[in-house]
Amino acid sequence: MTYRAPVRDLAFSLRHAADFGRLADAFPEADADTVAAVLEAAGAFAADVLAPLNRQGDLVGARLENGVVRSAPGFADAYKQFAQGGWASLAAPVEHGGQGLPKTLEVAVLEMVQAANMAFGLCPMLSLGAIEALEHHGSDNQKATYLPKLVSGEWTGTMNLTEPQAGSDLAALTTVATPDGDGGWKITGQKIFITWGDHDAADNIVHLVLARTPDAPPGVKGISLFLAPKVLVDADGALGEHNALRVGGLEHKLGIHGSPTCVMLFEGAKAELVGGLGQGLPNMFTMMNAARLQVGTQGTAIAERAYQQALAFSQERVQGRSAWTGASPTRIFDHPDVRRTLVLMKAHIEAARGICLSTAVAADLSRAAPDEATRTAAKLREELLTPIAKAWSTDVGVWVASQGLQIHGGMGFIEETGAAQHYRDARIAPIYEGTNGIQAIDLVGRKLMLGEGQALGDLMDDIRDTVEALVAGDLKAVGLRLEAALDAATQATAWLIERRTKAMPDALSGATAYQKLLGDVVGGWMLAKGALAAAGEADAAWAESKRALARVFAESVLAQVPGAAAGVMIGAADFEAMTPETLGA
Amino acid sequence: MTYRAPVRDLAFSLRHAADFGRLADAFPEADADTVAAVLEAAGAFAADVLAPLNRQGDLVGARLENGVVRSAPGFADAYKQFAQGGWASLAAPVEHGGQGLPKTLEVAVLEMVQAANMAFGLCPMLSLGAIEALEHHGSDNQKATYLPKLVSGEWTGTMNLTEPQAGSDLAALTTVATPDGDGGWKITGQKIFITWGDHDAADNIVHLVLARTPDAPPGVKGISLFLAPKVLVDADGALGEHNALRVGGLEHKLGIHGSPTCVMLFEGAKAELVGGLGQGLPNMFTMMNAARLQVGTQGTAIAERAYQQALAFSQERVQGRSAWTGASPTRIFDHPDVRRTLVLMKAHIEAARGICLSTAVAADLSRAAPDEATRTAAKLREELLTPIAKAWSTDVGVWVASQGLQIHGGMGFIEETGAAQHYRDARIAPIYEGTNGIQAIDLVGRKLMLGEGQALGDLMDDIRDTVEALVAGDLKAVGLRLEAALDAATQATAWLIERRTKAMPDALSGATAYQKLLGDVVGGWMLAKGALAAAGEADAAWAESKRALARVFAESVLAQVPGAAAGVMIGAADFEAMTPETLGA
Repeated sequence: MTYRAPVRDLAFSLRHAADFGRLADAFPEADADTVAAVLEAAGAFAADVLAPLNRQGDLVGARLENGVVRSAPGFADAYKQFAQGGWASLAAPVEHGGQGLPKTLEVAVLEMVQAANMAFGLCPMLSLGAIEALEHHGSDNQKATYLPKLVSGEWTGTMNLTEPQAGSDLAALTTVATPDGDGGWKITGQKIFITWGDHDAADNIVHLVLARTPDAPPGVKGISLFLAPKVLVDADGALGEHNALRVGGLEHKLGIHGSPTCVMLFEGAKAELVGGLGQGLPNMFTMMNAARLQVGTQGTAIAERAYQQALAFSQERVQGRSAWTGASPTRIFDHPDVRRTLVLMKAHIEAARGICLSTAVAADLSRAAPDEATRTAAKLREELLTPIAKAWSTDVGVWVASQGLQIHGGMGFIEETGAAQHYRDARIAPIYEGTNGIQAIDLVGRKLMLGEGQALGDLMDDIRDTVEALVAGDLKAVGLRLEAALDAATQATAWLIERRTKAMPDALSGATAYQKLLGDVVGGWMLAKGALAAAGEADAAWAESKRALARVFAESVLAQVPGAAAGVMIGAADFEAMTPETLGA
Repeated sequence: MTYRAPVRDLAFSLRHAADFGRLADAFPEADADTVAAVLEAAGAFAADVLAPLNRQGDLVGARLENGVVRSAPGFADAYKQFAQGGWASLAAPVEHGGQGLPKTLEVAVLEMVQAANMAFGLCPMLSLGAIEALEHHGSDNQKATYLPKLVSGEWTGTMNLTEPQAGSDLAALTTVATPDGDGGWKITGQKIFITWGDHDAADNIVHLVLARTPDAPPGVKGISLFLAPKVLVDADGALGEHNALRVGGLEHKLGIHGSPTCVMLFEGAKAELVGGLGQGLPNMFTMMNAARLQVGTQGTAIAERAYQQALAFSQERVQGRSAWTGASPTRIFDHPDVRRTLVLMKAHIEAARGICLSTAVAADLSRAAPDEATRTAAKLREELLTPIAKAWSTDVGVWVASQGLQIHGGMGFIEETGAAQHYRDARIAPIYEGTNGIQAIDLVGRKLMLGEGQALGDLMDDIRDTVEALVAGDLKAVGLRLEAALDAATQATAWLIERRTKAMPDALSGATAYQKLLGDVVGGWMLAKGALAAAGEADAAWAESKRALARVFAESVLAQVPGAAAGVMIGAADFEAMTPETLGA
C-alpha cells in the first residue's frame, strides 16, 4: 500500500484549524506559495522515497553486527537524500545554516515523513531535539562546532535519558560525569531505549546525555546535561577517534523495527557540559517539549497512514449488498458501518492534526511574534496544548490503527497486508517522551494553573468565540454540542483546581479522563473551525465533507463529554481503598 | 509472568452476575462443590501446564514442515493432557461420552484455558463447535462414528467457511461438493483462515466444510455442510487412508502464533453431507453461535491475562513518589493514575465475564430448563446477548491489553516482557467468528425485534429490577447512573426500531455505537448485581472492592451512555454523502 501525502488536508488545517496566517508578520517568507511548494515537495519525498522502505524496515529492521548498527535496507541512503534535500534544516536558525521557516511548517512536513515511515522519522526527530537543546543552552563554541552539522543533517542527534531503574523518574538516574582534569568530563553509565543511538546513516552522532556529577545533590537537582559525540571532533572540526561509548544491544520491539533502539554504554566517554551544572533537567525539557509535539504528530501521522490503507481496502474488497443502492456484490465502503468507521477515523485525524499544528503555531508565535503580549500568551497556549497534542493524538493513532486493521477483517491480522504494522508501530507513541499518564499529570499538576489559570481561560474564551459563530449559522447543532462540552470542561476544571489544593490524589485520579475530555473539546473545536471556514472553498463537495466531519464528531464524541466529566470528578477514595489483594485474582 | 486462575472471581461471577443457581433444577449434579472442584482443577491445569507454553508458542509458533503442521513446542503433549484430563468433554452429552455438565461451566473453564494460552485454547474451542454441529445435525451413524472421538478429545474439529473472496459474505463461496456415485461426496476447493486446520496433537481431524452442490441455487441457499475427515474412517471406526486434502500454507499473523492458521486445499476429498442439502448456513450457525460466545470469552480471558501481568508489574516497578503516602521511591501501583487504570481494567473484565457467563446460563436454560416458558425466554436471552458477548468482550480484550502494555511504560513495547504478546493476540478476537461490525448488524437487524421485541423488553425489565434494588439501598448513585443509561438505551432502541423499517441505513449507521451502548449498560448491570450480592460475603475488604468496581464503572462508563445515544441516532445522511474523493488524501 502506497502513501499519498495529504497536502490539501494539511494546507486546510494549517490555514483554518491552526490559524497559520497569524505567523505572517513573524515569518513573511512563509507565504502561501512557499508553504504549498514545501508541502508538495516534502509530500513527494515522503511518498516516493520513504514510504516504499516502510515494509522492509519492519521485516528486516535495524541490526547489530559486530557492535555496529546497520540501518534497515535503504534507510541510510534515504537519510542522506533527506539531509541533501534540506529537510533537516527547514526551521533551524539561518545563522546555523537553517532556512528559518516556522516550526509549524516543520511539523507539517514531519507528519508526512512519519506517516510514510515512522521508524525512519524518528532519526530526524531526535536530531531536532538536539538542535533545540544546543541552540538554547549550548556555548558559542558548542554551537559553532555542532549546530551546522546537525542542521545540515550530516550528523544526527540523540537523547540519553532513560536508565533501567529510571524511566519516568529521572531523579533515580545514576550515570555519572566526572571532571577529566582538562576542563572536560568523562561519562560512565548505561542508558536504555536510546532511539537511533547508533547507525550507519551519518558520519557522527551527537549524544545528549543526562548524568549526575560528583558531590551533586540527590534527586533532579544533581543532574546535568552533557554532550558526548560518537566520534570526537578536534578543534578545527575534523573527526578524530571514536569516543569511549558503544552499543550494548538492540531491543526486540513490538514495532518501529526500522528504528534502532539501543542500549548505550558510556565507558568514560569524553563529554562537554551543556548549560549550567545541575540544570540538566530543565535543559533537557527544552528538547522534550518540542519532542512531545513531534510525538503527537507521529500519532496523527500513523493514523493517517492506517486510514489511507483502510480506505483503499474498503474500495477494493467486495462483500455483500449495499445498504444504500442494493447493489450486490458491493465494495465494503458501501456498508454504513464501514463508512461510519472511516468517517470517524478521518474526523479524529483532522482533529489531532489541528491540535498539533495549533500547538506549533503557538510555539512559533511564542518565540517570534513581534509583540510581547502575543509571545507571552502564545507561550501559555503552547505549554497548555503540548500534553494534549502528545497524549490525545497518540491515543488517536492507536485507535485509528486498530480500526484500520478491523476494516480489513481477517486480512488485517495477516502481516503481509500491512495494517498490522501500523497497529504495532502506533503503540509506542503513547509511551515515549513521557507516557500519556505523565502528560495527564503535567496537565493537571502544572498546566491547569499556568499563568494563574490564564492559559486555560484564554483557550476556553477562544472556543467560546467559535461556539457563537457556529450557533449563529447553519452549524448550530455542532455549536450546541461544543458549548455543552465546553461547559462540562469548565465544570471539571473548576473541580480539579479545587481538589488539587485540598487533596491531590483526587485531582490525579481524574487526570487521564480530564486529558481525554479536554482533547475531545479542543479536537471538536478544530473541526468546527474547519467547518466554518469551509464555506469559502470552491469545491462544494469537499467543503461539505469538512462540515460533515464536524457534525459526526459532535454527535459521536462531543455528545459524550458532559457524561465524561463524571469520570474526571470521581475522586480517589475507591482507588485508594483498593489493594493488590482485593484487585488480585 | 505466570497466570493465576481467578477462581474466586469466576465463582463470584457465576453465582451473582450470571445467576448460576437458576441451573439447579436442570443440572442437579452441578452443585457448588462440583463447580468449585472443577474450577480449581481446571485453573491449576491452565496455570501449570498451559500458561508456561504461551511465550514459546508465540516465539516459535506452529510450523509447516514437508506439508505437515508441527505444533508449537509442548502444545501436542499439553493437548493430550487436556483430553486425558476430561476437559474436552465437560458439557458434552453423556450418551456420547461427555460429562453432561452445564455449558456455563465449560465457558468458565475455557476462560482460564484461553487466558493461560489463547493460541492453544482455539484447538478445543473449534472441536466444541464441531461437536455441537454433529450433535444437532449429524446422522445417527455420524454421531456414532465421530462424536465419541471428538468428545474424548482424541480427535479435533475445524470449521471451514472462509474463502479468499468470501469472508463475511458466505453467499460468495465457490468450493464445490459433487456426488461420488457411492452415496458420498467429493469436495474440491480452497479454504483460508482455518484454525488448527492441521497439527500433530491428535490422531485425526474432523473438518466441517461449507460447499456448494451442483445445480444448487446461487447464494446461501445453495450451500450445504459436509464432514471431511483428515484420515478416512472405515466402517468399524478404524483409521484408514489419508483423505485428499492438505495444508496449502500457514498464515503469518500478528498474534496467536501457536495456533496454526491454515490454507486448506480440498482436492476431491471424500466427505459426508451433514444435515439437509442447502441447509449449510443454518447448520453452520449452530457452531457459530456457540463459537461467538467462546470468542467473547477469549476477550475476557486475554484481558484477565494482560491485567494480571500489569497488576504484577505495578507492584514491582518502582518510580517516583506516592501521591497518598509521600513515600519515595514507590511502586507505581501507588500512583492514582496507574491505580485508576487497573481498577477500570478489572471492572471491564468482570463486566465482560458477567455478560459471557450470563449468555452461557441462558444457553443452558434454553435447552435444559424443565419448563417451556423458561426455555423460550432463555433462548431469546441467549440470542440477544450473543453479539454483545462476542463484540463487547473482545473490544474489552483489546482495550485492556493495550492499557496493560501502557502500564509497563517502555518495557511494554519490548517483546520479552510479554505484554506486547497479549496486545497482538487480543486483536484477532474482534475479527473472527463474524467481525464486531457483523455482530452489530446482527444485533440491530435481527436481535432488536427478536420475539417481537420481547427479548430486549425482558432484558430491560430485569435491569430495571436491579436499578430499583440499587436505588433503595446504599448504592443509590450506581442505581441512578444505571437508570439514566437504561433510559438512554430505551430511547436509542425505539429510534432504531423506527428507522429500521423506514430507512435501514440510518439504523445500520448507528449499529456499532448501539452495540457498545447496550454492552456498557449490560456490563454495568453485571457489576451492579455483584455489588448488591457482595454484602453477603465474609471478606469485607473484598466485598467492598466489588462495590467499588460498580461505582467506578458507573461514573466512568455508564455516565457517558446518555451522551452516547446521540452517536446511535446520528442517521446515515452524512455518511452517505461521503465519497472516496472527499474522504481521500
